[in-house]
Amino acid sequence: MSCTVCMNTEGKPVKMRKERDTLGELEVPDDRLYGAQTVRSVMNFPIGGIEERMPYPVIVAFGILKKAAAKVNMEYGLDKKLAEAIMHACDDVISGKLYREGHFPLVIWQTGSGTQSNMNTNEVVANRAIQLLGGKLGSKTPVHPNDHVNKSQSSNDTYPTAMHIAVAMELRDRLMPGLVALRDTLQAKSKEFEKIIKIGRTHLMDAVPLTLGQEFGGYVTQLTFGIERICTTLPRLHYLALGGTAVGTGLNTRIGFAEKCAAEIASITGIPFETAPDKFEALASHDAMVEVSGALNTVACSLMKIVNDIRFLASGPRCGLGELMLPENEPGSSIMPGKVNPTQCEALTMVAAQVMGNHVACTIGGSNGHFELNVFKTMIVANVLRSIRLLGDACQAFNKNCAVGIKANTGKINKIMNESLMLVTALNPHIGYDKAAQIAKTAHKEGGNLRDTAIKLGILTPEQFDQWVRPEDMLGPK
Amino acid sequence: MSCTVCMNTEGKPVKMRKERDTLGELEVPDDRLYGAQTVRSVMNFPIGGIEERMPYPVIVAFGILKKAAAKVNMEYGLDKKLAEAIMHACDDVISGKLYREGHFPLVIWQTGSGTQSNMNTNEVVANRAIQLLGGKLGSKTPVHPNDHVNKSQSSNDTYPTAMHIAVAMELRDRLMPGLVALRDTLQAKSKEFEKIIKIGRTHLMDAVPLTLGQEFGGYVTQLTFGIERICTTLPRLHYLALGGTAVGTGLNTRIGFAEKCAAEIASITGIPFETAPDKFEALASHDAMVEVSGALNTVACSLMKIVNDIRFLASGPRCGLGELMLPENEPGSSIMPGKVNPTQCEALTMVAAQVMGNHVACTIGGSNGHFELNVFKTMIVANVLRSIRLLGDACQAFNKNCAVGIKANTGKINKIMNESLMLVTALNPHIGYDKAAQIAKTAHKEGGNLRDTAIKLGILTPEQFDQWVRPEDMLGPK
Amino acid sequence: MSCTVCMNTEGKPVKMRKERDTLGELEVPDDRLYGAQTVRSVMNFPIGGIEERMPYPVIVAFGILKKAAAKVNMEYGLDKKLAEAIMHACDDVISGKLYREGHFPLVIWQTGSGTQSNMNTNEVVANRAIQLLGGKLGSKTPVHPNDHVNKSQSSNDTYPTAMHIAVAMELRDRLMPGLVALRDTLQAKSKEFEKIIKIGRTHLMDAVPLTLGQEFGGYVTQLTFGIERICTTLPRLHYLALGGTAVGTGLNTRIGFAEKCAAEIASITGIPFETAPDKFEALASHDAMVEVSGALNTVACSLMKIVNDIRFLASGPRCGLGELMLPENEPGSSIMPGKVNPTQCEALTMVAAQVMGNHVACTIGGSNGHFELNVFKTMIVANVLRSIRLLGDACQAFNKNCAVGIKANTGKINKIMNESLMLVTALNPHIGYDKAAQIAKTAHKEGGNLRDTAIKLGILTPEQFDQWVRPEDMLGPK
Amino acid sequence: MSCTVCMNTEGKPVKMRKERDTLGELEVPDDRLYGAQTVRSVMNFPIGGIEERMPYPVIVAFGILKKAAAKVNMEYGLDKKLAEAIMHACDDVISGKLYREGHFPLVIWQTGSGTQSNMNTNEVVANRAIQLLGGKLGSKTPVHPNDHVNKSQSSNDTYPTAMHIAVAMELRDRLMPGLVALRDTLQAKSKEFEKIIKIGRTHLMDAVPLTLGQEFGGYVTQLTFGIERICTTLPRLHYLALGGTAVGTGLNTRIGFAEKCAAEIASITGIPFETAPDKFEALASHDAMVEVSGALNTVACSLMKIVNDIRFLASGPRCGLGELMLPENEPGSSIMPGKVNPTQCEALTMVAAQVMGNHVACTIGGSNGHFELNVFKTMIVANVLRSIRLLGDACQAFNKNCAVGIKANTGKINKIMNESLMLVTALNPHIGYDKAAQIAKTAHKEGGNLRDTAIKLGILTPEQFDQWVRPEDMLGPK
Repeated sequence: MSCTVCMNTEGKPVKMRKERDTLGELEVPDDRLYGAQTVRSVMNFPIGGIEERMPYPVIVAFGILKKAAAKVNMEYGLDKKLAEAIMHACDDVISGKLYREGHFPLVIWQTGSGTQSNMNTNEVVANRAIQLLGGKLGSKTPVHPNDHVNKSQSSNDTYPTAMHIAVAMELRDRLMPGLVALRDTLQAKSKEFEKIIKIGRTHLMDAVPLTLGQEFGGYVTQLTFGIERICTTLPRLHYLALGGTAVGTGLNTRIGFAEKCAAEIASITGIPFETAPDKFEALASHDAMVEVSGALNTVACSLMKIVNDIRFLASGPRCGLGELMLPENEPGSSIMPGKVNPTQCEALTMVAAQVMGNHVACTIGGSNGHFELNVFKTMIVANVLRSIRLLGDACQAFNKNCAVGIKANTGKINKIMNESLMLVTALNPHIGYDKAAQIAKTAHKEGGNLRDTAIKLGILTPEQFDQWVRPEDMLGPK
Repeated sequence: MSCTVCMNTEGKPVKMRKERDTLGELEVPDDRLYGAQTVRSVMNFPIGGIEERMPYPVIVAFGILKKAAAKVNMEYGLDKKLAEAIMHACDDVISGKLYREGHFPLVIWQTGSGTQSNMNTNEVVANRAIQLLGGKLGSKTPVHPNDHVNKSQSSNDTYPTAMHIAVAMELRDRLMPGLVALRDTLQAKSKEFEKIIKIGRTHLMDAVPLTLGQEFGGYVTQLTFGIERICTTLPRLHYLALGGTAVGTGLNTRIGFAEKCAAEIASITGIPFETAPDKFEALASHDAMVEVSGALNTVACSLMKIVNDIRFLASGPRCGLGELMLPENEPGSSIMPGKVNPTQCEALTMVAAQVMGNHVACTIGGSNGHFELNVFKTMIVANVLRSIRLLGDACQAFNKNCAVGIKANTGKINKIMNESLMLVTALNPHIGYDKAAQIAKTAHKEGGNLRDTAIKLGILTPEQFDQWVRPEDMLGPK
Repeated sequence: MSCTVCMNTEGKPVKMRKERDTLGELEVPDDRLYGAQTVRSVMNFPIGGIEERMPYPVIVAFGILKKAAAKVNMEYGLDKKLAEAIMHACDDVISGKLYREGHFPLVIWQTGSGTQSNMNTNEVVANRAIQLLGGKLGSKTPVHPNDHVNKSQSSNDTYPTAMHIAVAMELRDRLMPGLVALRDTLQAKSKEFEKIIKIGRTHLMDAVPLTLGQEFGGYVTQLTFGIERICTTLPRLHYLALGGTAVGTGLNTRIGFAEKCAAEIASITGIPFETAPDKFEALASHDAMVEVSGALNTVACSLMKIVNDIRFLASGPRCGLGELMLPENEPGSSIMPGKVNPTQCEALTMVAAQVMGNHVACTIGGSNGHFELNVFKTMIVANVLRSIRLLGDACQAFNKNCAVGIKANTGKINKIMNESLMLVTALNPHIGYDKAAQIAKTAHKEGGNLRDTAIKLGILTPEQFDQWVRPEDMLGPK
Repeated sequence: MSCTVCMNTEGKPVKMRKERDTLGELEVPDDRLYGAQTVRSVMNFPIGGIEERMPYPVIVAFGILKKAAAKVNMEYGLDKKLAEAIMHACDDVISGKLYREGHFPLVIWQTGSGTQSNMNTNEVVANRAIQLLGGKLGSKTPVHPNDHVNKSQSSNDTYPTAMHIAVAMELRDRLMPGLVALRDTLQAKSKEFEKIIKIGRTHLMDAVPLTLGQEFGGYVTQLTFGIERICTTLPRLHYLALGGTAVGTGLNTRIGFAEKCAAEIASITGIPFETAPDKFEALASHDAMVEVSGALNTVACSLMKIVNDIRFLASGPRCGLGELMLPENEPGSSIMPGKVNPTQCEALTMVAAQVMGNHVACTIGGSNGHFELNVFKTMIVANVLRSIRLLGDACQAFNKNCAVGIKANTGKINKIMNESLMLVTALNPHIGYDKAAQIAKTAHKEGGNLRDTAIKLGILTPEQFDQWVRPEDMLGPK
């Protein structure tokens, strides 16, 4: 046998122990806490490398879930000593210790119900508890992965429960801080720029003025609404499948188990999880994931728009729009001296595109459940978690390395605003659309400015022009 | 000149009148209420046929918007006679009369701001008001399309306003009735089927039993949550851009105009529209549309899952699962006598796939706004409205022609449930997982049933089997 | 009974005849050539309006297919008089006459195999042939829709055959002319602009120069490759399912029928169709459609890029890049006098986004076939055909109304190119990257130009600068 | 400073050396071969974890590219000793040694041009060459990352070149073996099953028979066409951007450099790469990537269909279709004894969904290039490479662990085929469609079989039935 599970990280063979499952005996690396079913999965699914591992937040969520279940099972009669050992073992999952030590080797691409990751967790928690109780690894005594760790549970209800826990935690702990930080920075910029009057652009063409603060305020609103959009998905995300067991009926579990576990998970995480009102829906569909993914997709659209604006407004320095100046974080070109590129914008827009793609993968997975179980679970949650992480991290990086350092190039802003022909719009109420258009078109044709042209055409006196064409009066309704 | 605007529906040339806009003179069919700008759009955008027309709900929404604006403009000084004529003209837009008569010929594929459809409306309303006041078509007197009908407005704020009105109305009037009707039917079926115990299926494989009522109950929950999902998007959909004019500042409009118009539109439609708190966001992005589209996408996933289940459960009649019987609506095959196909399921799943595709188009459009204006507006709203209409109509058709007539094939359901080896799960607490597995595997290998096998293997007495293996005891927690 | 089939276009009731199918009797409008099965479909699938009709090219393709089948069936013994009447009737389908007269009322959203559109065609062709032979409509005598028109066929092989015919014809007749016309115009522009040196932009930032001709040449290559991409899909598109009948075996058809029909269809259309080497694949999957859609998707990406470039390069006139000038096709703003917008660009980019969305719908439909038949056929082909039509039409409109009129704003191009700091790159070989960077950074900081700065810093003499910094020497390798 | 670059894998601080780039000085871990620009990227883009690293095939491709460039640069005058040291250093990149040792820490989410990964490579190769020549790390002497390793190159042409090399190699080395292996297995199965007659299913409903071999043959054709589809994209994938430098003009490179490099890369890889005919297209767009992704998307659709069929046909064992038996690779359920699940099918269908999502991300990235450079490069190539790897690996796993072990359940296949009512179709030519339908409908209603029913109804004698209703005669045209 020559597979990755038999090698340590230096590629050397490791000492093996023998374990059995219902399909027979096989060898397990003796420094690993997982067991036969995990090894089978590693052997049967050599798909992708380390980058395809089951996302870490799912493992943490499993730790939380198993801990909560152990505590509740104790109320229903599970031996206290075993239950407490399981709970301690779970703490080592929750802290990330056992993940970092390599006890969770499985990839996303396994059975679509996540059964193997559930069993991986059961095996690791059982063996860790056995260690704590002084037993022998792999002996399933005194703590059995199925009978004790998985008690009153099935992969079919635990995995979707772990999905909801993981996503809700990551939304709170990773996405929201990123979104809020960026929103707050843009809000501060909006305030900072509130007096800077600039040309507006519609259809990419020169239009009437607004303030740079108003422009940034639009971005702030997009992100504020984005935060609201995430929040609107939470009620359904907070429903947990646990207690449904194999098909949603709750066979082999106990009345009250579902509610108590949800309460316990809520207590551990500080998130108001509840038991799902319909366990059949909770196993057979992942609409709640598609919904969250949809909210992330909308946020990605917002970010794409905002960041595209920022990099176009900062384009130049000489041959672009040049209204903004972005921080210089790294040398821009190995061939062009002095070039600075909007690299943070690029990372964030690429992330946005990725999130949109991930959303389609979720959608397809979400639409393909059959009967009592959707078996695109691991793919779905991996995409949602990746979108959350990328958005959260990229917002933080963009915020810190770009947004906070954005400066207005007021010289350029003023210059081109004053050259704009669209200020002519202010003349409509005074001389009518047709004469205003005549001034604009003449100036455009001759390359002149509005003031000189209006005077030359004899339509306005200099005083009239100066009195009527005032960008600062064009910033709101009267 | 030989274009569609100069032909009547029989392809014969029609009498033309001459009109001008700022680019010059052109001919307009004299039996049409639109004017030069509409004609230019028809000539410049011969993209697709009649199936690409601006969706009807957008036209109705424009009628409502222009009526509201006229009423509010009257408060701000617009001549009462003109305002009332405009309002009457708008009624003919709202009723659909002017659409049916061919005064709105433009397609989706025009300027991305919808400017040309705004002008089409302005021209038609102005000319209709002129007719009502006894004037001459195309004279712009006494009602001017820009100065009066479009007063205090810009395409840039009217079109997004019409988008929100149209989508909100269609959600209420077309999608919700369809979704609710189908949900209610499935709920009634869930009740009707509550005593029918059937085999569950996970990974498509035989699993433990549940009731057919529970299975249908899962579908009901999916749709109930789907309805909630639609509702969560409404707060942002109810924000109207009107009052932002060209770039969001509200230039050339009046303080209070935005709020009064929103209130008036709310009054006409019975939908709680409000003026958008940030007009810059409302013009430059269409996140609210992407959000609604995301909710529709989630509903499409739900429907795909539900309907796939139904047609698989009804597959057969002899060689499939055969648990359900669907109504026979049409001959199924021109070559195979007696064949009945789940055609309503097919239409609805195709609609679901279309909605998912439409969502991607919306997403791409939504992410591509620049500066003060997103110019994918007409494409975006056309996709959202199409998704709504298709989902609403297809749910109604499916409901009426399929769901209400679904029958349980109790004979088949019972037969295969009792053959299932997974009932062995009920023995776990009595004889342990291993012996239970031995019975199941032996029965599987030998093709026998559980009862006979358990007895033959000497593991159970007939009495024990009959007492312990009772599907009706496997439907919930203990 | 009150449905659309019983009303004429004025909404008045029409005279009805009674017809039967295997499900019973119903009424058919007596001025219509279709029969009972078409009426059932109209009644059962009230999904969407006229814009959802089965695409016209599918109907034409059915005419071609039925004509070819009749001719081949005659070889296999179909009565010559009947066969010829069928072929004449088919000519009225192919010409569009019977479509325009309203005999093909069905929508996309029907059975996913397109059975009802096959039957619609069978009924219309049979009745038209009956008319030609002096018989009574609806009598099925002497021409029977199933026994004669559909002879040796099944919906399951005819509909996919019609899909391939329709798509291949539309690619040739609608997409290719549009793509080629636009490519040729851009090629002419590339030549016209070959001497115009301009600043290059990477990361949106000023970079080293290239010619405007080179830039447009890149667009030409994109479209040339796009045309190649379409062509690479044709071998599999040219395979026809006809002859597979119900499940691909060719039951109830004759040896040689498939090959002869394909040859006949090739002859009618001038397209090298062949009988599919595997009829099972041809019925059960629509990978060939997904493949074509993928090519269209790539073309849409190309167009999005090209057209975005063009509108950004034309942005301004004062506050944008201003390197190009686009034709003015319509008044740009109802509020801003003299504004001209890149409306053709907007229509084409919206079309591109739609095509990308349509592609996802195709993909989902294509992935969801089951067993011997994919039943997302009508949705799939409708999306592919719509993408083709929109791309073809929008390329033509863009070409005619925008591309041919693009002008270079050489004054602006020169001015900003000469202001660019990136010309400093030409100094690398003479003074090294570091000194070059010093000049660029000093000029950037002080707002000076390169020449003055280089001289002021004492790094270069005026003569050296003029000799070394020559944009015209920066356009290619040495 | 506390960032990941200053910690070794045990999280302990490492010895640092100081380096400079044009933005100033910073510290580099002294056991790393990369330099300042790589460190800056690590600090500026903390987005995602190890799973977001630049894909390994891109690094290998960079090794190949840099080696080829060094060799060609030697022809153009680069010092032989330096060139050879660079080439040796590149061999350590190509072999994966330097990647495994941690010298390529950058993630996908950096500048969209991949500049930082190009510089990472330049730094590592330069330092490795310096090591080989006995110099001091970070001294840039005698081998300079820019002047020597990057000579005649720019990130803007090297990164897209690396994209094409990496994708072409992975298609050949990873995707094709997987696809071909699976196709060949299915072909063998098709042959193995060629005599097994089974019921066909259309619309999921019982239809006329075919052989299991024919059914599998359809899958074979899908994959064979899929392989063709991949191949059709290669001509454009084989074009390399190298030689275009910063904007496509080839500034600072030499005539002939591009062609010679392409030839050298072709020689190293054994793939017929050529220099791109248009470098502007090659930098500014990634249509070739979108095209490859489109082919992968089509393959994903094929696999989704095939694998869905296989798992539905294997559903059961008692309550499903049960025509196939799949290998049992792991225990199926922690709660249901004896359950076996189609886990390999699940992994592969999840991969297919992921590929469809990745394709959308590519499409969006591909459509968003601007001017002379598309800056979604790293995201695009990461998605294409991931799709290739997942498809290749999952096909291998599915092939080995499922496909080769598929067995036909001939007992079940025969039984349900003979129960099918659709065999009645064979009677059409003998007794007509109507009488045939009468038999089928009566049998359906009464639950009888066709033979008994036909005899009971007096329509057929037993001899007639046995002579006419012979599935083995229904498998092809006559």
